[in-house]
Amino acid sequence: MYGAGDVRIENVPDPKIIEPTDAVIRVSRACVCGSDLWPYQKMERSDRGRVMGHEAIGVVEDVGADVRMIKRGDFVIMPFAFSDGTCAFCHDGLQTSCLHGGFFGSTEVAGAQAEAVRIPLADGTLFPVRAHADDALMPSLLTLSDVMGTGHHAAVIARVTPGKSVAVVGDGAVGLCGVIAAKRLGAEQIIILGRHADRIALAKDFGATDVVSERGDAAVERVRELTRDEGVHSVLECVGLEQAMHTAISIARPGGAVGRVGVPQEQTIPGSEPAFYNNVMVGGGVAPVRAYIKELLPDILEGTIQPGRVFDRNVGLDGVPDGYRAMNDRESIKVMVTP
Amino acid sequence: MYGAGDVRIENVPDPKIIEPTDAVIRVSRACVCGSDLWPYQKMERSDRGRVMGHEAIGVVEDVGADVRMIKRGDFVIMPFAFSDGTCAFCHDGLQTSCLHGGFFGSTEVAGAQAEAVRIPLADGTLFPVRAHADDALMPSLLTLSDVMGTGHHAAVIARVTPGKSVAVVGDGAVGLCGVIAAKRLGAEQIIILGRHADRIALAKDFGATDVVSERGDAAVERVRELTRDEGVHSVLECVGLEQAMHTAISIARPGGAVGRVGVPQEQTIPGSEPAFYNNVMVGGGVAPVRAYIKELLPDILEGTIQPGRVFDRNVGLDGVPDGYRAMNDRESIKVMVTP
Repeated sequence: MYGAGDVRIENVPDPKIIEPTDAVIRVSRACVCGSDLWPYQKMERSDRGRVMGHEAIGVVEDVGADVRMIKRGDFVIMPFAFSDGTCAFCHDGLQTSCLHGGFFGSTEVAGAQAEAVRIPLADGTLFPVRAHADDALMPSLLTLSDVMGTGHHAAVIARVTPGKSVAVVGDGAVGLCGVIAAKRLGAEQIIILGRHADRIALAKDFGATDVVSERGDAAVERVRELTRDEGVHSVLECVGLEQAMHTAISIARPGGAVGRVGVPQEQTIPGSEPAFYNNVMVGGGVAPVRAYIKELLPDILEGTIQPGRVFDRNVGLDGVPDGYRAMNDRESIKVMVTP
Repeated sequence: MYGAGDVRIENVPDPKIIEPTDAVIRVSRACVCGSDLWPYQKMERSDRGRVMGHEAIGVVEDVGADVRMIKRGDFVIMPFAFSDGTCAFCHDGLQTSCLHGGFFGSTEVAGAQAEAVRIPLADGTLFPVRAHADDALMPSLLTLSDVMGTGHHAAVIARVTPGKSVAVVGDGAVGLCGVIAAKRLGAEQIIILGRHADRIALAKDFGATDVVSERGDAAVERVRELTRDEGVHSVLECVGLEQAMHTAISIARPGGAVGRVGVPQEQTIPGSEPAFYNNVMVGGGVAPVRAYIKELLPDILEGTIQPGRVFDRNVGLDGVPDGYRAMNDRESIKVMVTP
């Protein structure tokens, strides 16, 4: 990506081991993220460009001399952040705050919308899938690199537990995975706030019990109607815009919690006063998806959850620029890339 | 109070039972709250005035026909909010969101800087102290009506548990009670952010291990130095101003929590991005102090904690206007009123 709207496919040198803790993976599947749309809309022109993509599954092609756990030929999930797996934050399960970590597809580390990727700190970063996984499972496995783990993070932070009422703000891939996560954690009522027919249909398949297509005050009123005027215990904020966060805080029940995973586009969180007077907690952030793979993987292997259904388009590398456009135009929910 | 800076002592009719669920208490001790200073600084002129004060202990003088649990002659703690004790939120321990509740010293319900107060929903609101409590315990018992419960709320929301590092932003009475609460919950390191010598001395007595007198970025840097550059697990935000909240978020460790109890003076919470990228939770609000009395009372009766030490001045009703001035000028930490 060389700037807003300017995505190009180019031939670049193959990634190589640089540090002895690196690995290189051959990408089986990658994808375009909703968060990639922020630079797609806003990125300043750059001569150097940025190799995008932070979600992938693939096969390990090479490992550095100090890599111990990951072997050549391993089929692995690449979380969107790399992490050493040994620091205090990794031990806490917060790999996105790893003292030596960073993010794929950033200005420093090349991304995964490519044939191959260099993986720093391979032992701490990659999650090997040692069970047999056929092609049909690939899309769902791919979601463990970001969106499914991110939706789950929102649900965990929003304290979804059996019997709770939940609202999911946003019907993008993360919001849809949030519905899966809420259902999986035992939520009784799951209200999806969104207005795209295809996404809403999928949300219902995933377990949404109610749909609110209104926005702003009308959405708040509608959620109140659906919850005996109390609001919901848990809100998953999966957008990142001020209005979405304001809605999220306004529909939370007193004492409720908002788990936010939409990348914030503003410097402040709105709704300071309602949050205070209703004791609504606002938490969440960059999801430590590496920490959640172990819990979520069995459900995917068994087919209990099928987050891969969020992919409604599959392209080769040449199709990536149009994939960005399609997602940005809301023509596609999420685009998978098979290099 | 008839407007900013305009506090008067006037003779008004004695409060009487209005609803059958009411009680009337004779005030033994009341006090001026840090949150009373916001209207003291900002309140618009009013012809009707507002009977201030939301903290009191006293003796029940009269009860309505439907009051069952509270008896004439009971010595009681009056939490700053009244509540029915039976609704869903009261059951959850969030009496400040009671469906039929409200606040003393508000425009609707007269306050406790008075000889007597009418208590709506007496059964759900008042907490009878049936143990013998001598005069020396009065100040500490009085803090259960607000500041000690509020400091404890901040600590609970900020997830203080044994061994944690804690920072308390603000050295007012609530901040000082926050230090007591953090110590009581087992915090290992307690950093107080404040700059008033008398308050800092008390904070140290209460268990503060470190003092940071800087503000803004310098304060953040200093807390980082004190915490191996990691930040603290738990932050108790006891001010309510934007800068204090920004500091609170900035000194939290990734994955940490901010419990805020300072009444917010702005519409937005600053630090959306650092909170997001560090997964810092921001929670708290109006403290349901009624819910905490049962847990905190024994420690006060046994003298294990002495939050009453935050009172450094005791006045009669006539001294209340000067009490406001003294607290506003930071000449006094907290003023007790013995009518």
